[in-house]
Formats: sequence, C-alpha cells, structure tokens
Amino acid sequence: MAHITLKNDRLPGIVGLLDYRPETARPLNELAEVLLRGPSTLTRGERELIASSVSHWNQCHFCHSAHGAVAAAHLKTGIALLDDIKADLKQTNISPKLRALLTIAKQVQQGGRQVAEATIKAARQQGATDLEIHDTVLITAAFCMYNRFVDGLGTWAPEPKEAYAEIGQVLATVGYVNFRPDRKTD
Amino acid sequence: MAHITLKNDRLPGIVGLLDYRPETARPLNELAEVLLRGPSTLTRGERELIASSVSHWNQCHFCHSAHGAVAAAHLKTGIALLDDIKADLKQTNISPKLRALLTIAKQVQQGGRQVAEATIKAARQQGATDLEIHDTVLITAAFCMYNRFVDGLGTWAPEPKEAYAEIGQVLATVGYVNFRPDRKTD
Repeated sequence: MAHITLKNDRLPGIVGLLDYRPETARPLNELAEVLLRGPSTLTRGERELIASSVSHWNQCHFCHSAHGAVAAAHLKTGIALLDDIKADLKQTNISPKLRALLTIAKQVQQGGRQVAEATIKAARQQGATDLEIHDTVLITAAFCMYNRFVDGLGTWAPEPKEAYAEIGQVLATVGYVNFRPDRKTD
Repeated sequence: MAHITLKNDRLPGIVGLLDYRPETARPLNELAEVLLRGPSTLTRGERELIASSVSHWNQCHFCHSAHGAVAAAHLKTGIALLDDIKADLKQTNISPKLRALLTIAKQVQQGGRQVAEATIKAARQQGATDLEIHDTVLITAAFCMYNRFVDGLGTWAPEPKEAYAEIGQVLATVGYVNFRPDRKTD
C-alpha cells in the first residue's frame, strides 16, 4: 500500500501518482513524451532501453518492467527482453553507439559527478552526437526522478513481466501525454 | 567546460542546458514552477530549502547555491543561509514538520526504496499531510534529476555563495517559467 492515500489505489506505480496530482502529472508526462517519443536520431526503442536499464539499476521494478515492455513493443522482441535488460543486454543486438551511451547512463545514475570525460569521448568515437549525449544524460536523470517518485511513495506494482506486455503495447502506441489509465483498469 | 557544445557557454549550470534544448526546457521549468511556487501549504521558502538541501547531498554546487539563494530571498535571511543548509539547518529556525519532511527527503535522495514507514509516520505526527509528503518526495526526486543533468553534462558554476544572491532574488520574484537568462548575462 502506498505511503499516502491515492484517489484510486488500483492504479499501479506512477499511474496512481499521476492521477492523484494532475498539476505535477502534466510536466512529468510532457517530459517523458519529448524525451522518449519526440524527434530524435535515437529510435524510440533505444530510448526505452535506456529508461528501463536505469530503472533496473535503481531497483524500480514498476518503471523497469513498464518501459522494458514499451521497448519490447517498439523492437518487436517479446517480453523476454526484460530479462536481458536485467543482464545488461548481452543477448540483444544493439549498436556500439547505444552501448557507449548506456555506459554514460550508468555513470549518471550513480551521480552527476561520476561521468568521466573518457566515457563521453568513447561515445563520440561510436558516432554519438551532442544531442544524443544530452538526451541520454537527461533520460537517465529523469528516470532517477521517476524511480524515486514511484518507490519513495511506496506504490505497488505487478510482479511477473508478462503483466506488463499489454501496457507496453498501449504506451508504445499512444504515448505518455495521451495515455488514459481507465482504458487499462475499467 | 561542458561535455557538449552549448549555444551560449557563458550561462552557468542548468541555464545553459535549458537554452540549448527548448523542447525539454519547457516541462523542466513547468515542473519546478508547480513544485516550488505553485499553491501549497508549504511556503516557497520551505520548498526551496528542501531543493537546496537535496542538491547539497548530491554535491551539485550550482543547484545547491542557486536554490539556497532563492530560499534566502524568500526567507529574508541573507546569503549566509547557504552555509547553514550545508550544515543541516542547525542555526535556522525551521518547523518540526519541515525537519521531519527533510528526513523523508534524505531517504528519497539515497533511493526510493530507502524510505521507511516510520519516517512517514514521524512526519505525520508533526502534522504533515498526504500532499505535503507527496510534494516532498517529488521535489527530492526532481532534484535528483536536475542535479544529475547539470553535473552529468559537466556545466560550470560560480564558486562563491555571494555570486548567487542576485539570481536568487530574480528567481524568487519572476519564477522559473518566466525567467529569461539574457536579463542576467547581457
């Protein structure tokens, strides 16, 4: 049970929190929309892989599972992708550039001051642009926020990865700003 | 020097990053505006104290100093407040409720799963409401994002606390959505 009384305690993870306070939900949804779905030279699948990986490192089961499921929907891999995200994407065929960006993400997740110039340089050598580096840092930072928000307020989350397949498909299709939770729960 | 080439490298901390990418700046500024200045039973000064404290714990000198200066402007304490924020507000007269909310913030800063039910209960015993607990968790989580964004991209920041007094006054007056950096630098 969450640490505060939500309007609808059937809604899992961040969904119940966004429903509880629409004033803060608006910029939180807009930020996710721009970062994960807006125009970018990183695919939507690649950006969701960063979001899901960061959430796993932060031990946020809901965000890891939900965004891993969105990545699986974009990349058409099936929900088993979530196990590979937990194992540092050893089985999934990702580009050397994305792998270098994930190394930046790992350092940002540990703390802003942990990012080494050499890590940035390594990403550039794999073709990463300034904007891709900016967005990788901000996606990672944003999930350090979403993860703390979701777990810091003690929300509940379904356990098995299969429970996230449908929400992954929905979010991959409609996105964050246009998502309506009642379509999932009623 | 920042890890990426900004449009205007005279702008310190997050200011240069917001100028670099207006699409992400918009929700980032709106989130700060709602959380730190929107209608709330916590004063603007109290909320800025949480923001500045979290930024200090994350070792983000720019955000700690800028938001500490905004707190000082709201609370009319003078810029020496920044030293007391670094020392856990031992000298500043804050309410037992705010002190209890800062304990929640400290746990959220360490990780969403670090928040203990007893810490929430202690805040409630000092009169904290659900909405105050929600906003404390989200302010803390948001600064875990802003701090990683600012330092993860290697931005520069003025060192002495006195350098932040003017920006503190400006932000306390005009807020985040209406702030125009050229008013500070030209």
